[in-house]
Amino acid sequence: MKKLINSPETVLDDALAGIAAAHPELSVDRANKVISRGAGGGRPGKVALVSGGGSGHEPLHGGFVGPGMLDAACAGEVFTSPVPGQMLAAAKAVDTGAGVVFIVKNYTGDVLNFEMAAELAVEEGVSVETVLVDDDVAVQDSTWTAGRRGTGATVFVEKIAGALAEQGADLATVVKAARDVNAASRSFAVALTACTTPAAGKPGFDLPEDEIEIGVGIHGEPGRRRDKLRTAKEIVATALDAILADQPLAAGDRTIVMVNGLGATPLLELYVVFHEVAAAFAERGIVIARSLVGNYVTSLDMAGVSVTVCRADSDMLSLWDAPVDTPGLRWGA
Amino acid sequence: MKKLINSPETVLDDALAGIAAAHPELSVDRANKVISRGAGGGRPGKVALVSGGGSGHEPLHGGFVGPGMLDAACAGEVFTSPVPGQMLAAAKAVDTGAGVVFIVKNYTGDVLNFEMAAELAVEEGVSVETVLVDDDVAVQDSTWTAGRRGTGATVFVEKIAGALAEQGADLATVVKAARDVNAASRSFAVALTACTTPAAGKPGFDLPEDEIEIGVGIHGEPGRRRDKLRTAKEIVATALDAILADQPLAAGDRTIVMVNGLGATPLLELYVVFHEVAAAFAERGIVIARSLVGNYVTSLDMAGVSVTVCRADSDMLSLWDAPVDTPGLRWGA
Repeated sequence: MKKLINSPETVLDDALAGIAAAHPELSVDRANKVISRGAGGGRPGKVALVSGGGSGHEPLHGGFVGPGMLDAACAGEVFTSPVPGQMLAAAKAVDTGAGVVFIVKNYTGDVLNFEMAAELAVEEGVSVETVLVDDDVAVQDSTWTAGRRGTGATVFVEKIAGALAEQGADLATVVKAARDVNAASRSFAVALTACTTPAAGKPGFDLPEDEIEIGVGIHGEPGRRRDKLRTAKEIVATALDAILADQPLAAGDRTIVMVNGLGATPLLELYVVFHEVAAAFAERGIVIARSLVGNYVTSLDMAGVSVTVCRADSDMLSLWDAPVDTPGLRWGA
Repeated sequence: MKKLINSPETVLDDALAGIAAAHPELSVDRANKVISRGAGGGRPGKVALVSGGGSGHEPLHGGFVGPGMLDAACAGEVFTSPVPGQMLAAAKAVDTGAGVVFIVKNYTGDVLNFEMAAELAVEEGVSVETVLVDDDVAVQDSTWTAGRRGTGATVFVEKIAGALAEQGADLATVVKAARDVNAASRSFAVALTACTTPAAGKPGFDLPEDEIEIGVGIHGEPGRRRDKLRTAKEIVATALDAILADQPLAAGDRTIVMVNGLGATPLLELYVVFHEVAAAFAERGIVIARSLVGNYVTSLDMAGVSVTVCRADSDMLSLWDAPVDTPGLRWGA
């Protein structure tokens, strides 16, 4: 295992120290492993958005904390859910009295821990609503998930609901918008290589030199099948077939599309993939109104790509365009 | 070789098509492989900045085209210099009559081609000045370079000179600022793995499972030596020793620091590295006034990191903070 770390045991704490040093506008609570907006975040009456999950998917979630997006993020150990105490600390740190939205990717550990944290928060007088993200159409159940896994749509939910909260919407309105974005989004991923967690020290699964995993999860969970390496065009066709089979899109529908690198994929290749998505959508008359191409929801050093498509109405697009100022997404601010 | 491409022959054209689709605000000339600002770029009297180089280093350079940074970038084939015709086309596309600055990384092919392009441009009545970037302190000469290689400082030069040009500075002023930034910057890189070009189909060099290349170039050129894998702290100490031996910094000096992933390095690890840089600078009293942590000057799928340090005066910091609106760097706009 080759990694730029000091030891598997200290990687998360060292990275949090690095985040604190690189982003002095954020507040990093290393004891609780919570990243939140510093002073000035959380105007009175603003609904707070809190997310979190296992580390190893950066910039998700800590890189999306800041004006226009999350108020706080809890970092678990690599590929391991944070614990309820972290989530409670995050909720209490950013609650203004207007309530807190937990944005939770659908993995059993995350779901149970956020559920317990929500109960604890309510006991302490914090109103909490939970939004589950489950956009990955590859498989129905998976290694660590009952139901669909939550992946790339998390970025869309955090951005759009974050913009709405920033504008002063109330708890119910923010929650509804977040659920609408999740309901309108679908993702599908393909892995070219496995990834290696610092603790394990070896790849999470074996993938022969000429094979790819179709429908892989963001921790390397199995997808639908193994396949021989295909062209970018064929891989995109497979991903879009799965996405569109689950949520048909019609000519004229407007979408937000993310072509996301899983960690070790050159940006050059992500643009090749985006070209194929754009060409396939152009053939069908589907409009790509907004897009992201880059590394947003990663799986450590996995090579591969995920495609996320959100059918976006005018309100979503307008919230997408609203200013955002985080380490991972920044515009208009 | 596992890559998300259609074929080695089409990778650059497909990627340019993807860039055009993802960034409709840019103008992509696929015949000349030139990315430039679309309509509205190049106000009358604005000095134009043009850069370029081999592909495989994305977002450099095409990802830095836009208001506040470059006016145009020429893309060569992977790890291959663009040709003079591309550079001439780029210069003519963006010249407003106020002159063009060629920002050239110091590789022999790039230098010769940009030199020829400058001669051709002058013949066509375009004033051209060339700024050479040669910040990599690892080695004096290298596989494709006489003198020092140009690497991470290119981002600093393009950002700071770009901001100055945007503010309306004249050709000589922009050129001087660009040279000052290069002169104030030093870089050093370490590779954990080699990278594979689509055309070669196999890694550019062999690196045993427990070894790293100290002082590697952005095409995998040899550095100073091979070493056993070390901790992040030790690797950072080696890089900073090389950087500070070449340009000593004193307590109170202000810097811009970039911790740059070479393509396959998880962001989590880059933050671990940044933490070590910040800790080492804090010990010496050196101030990190601004920073970047992420993938900015990559080497396809190489795992590793480069550290770039610029000793920045108040003018540079103020230009650094000026609005920029490109695919790879975006703030204040």
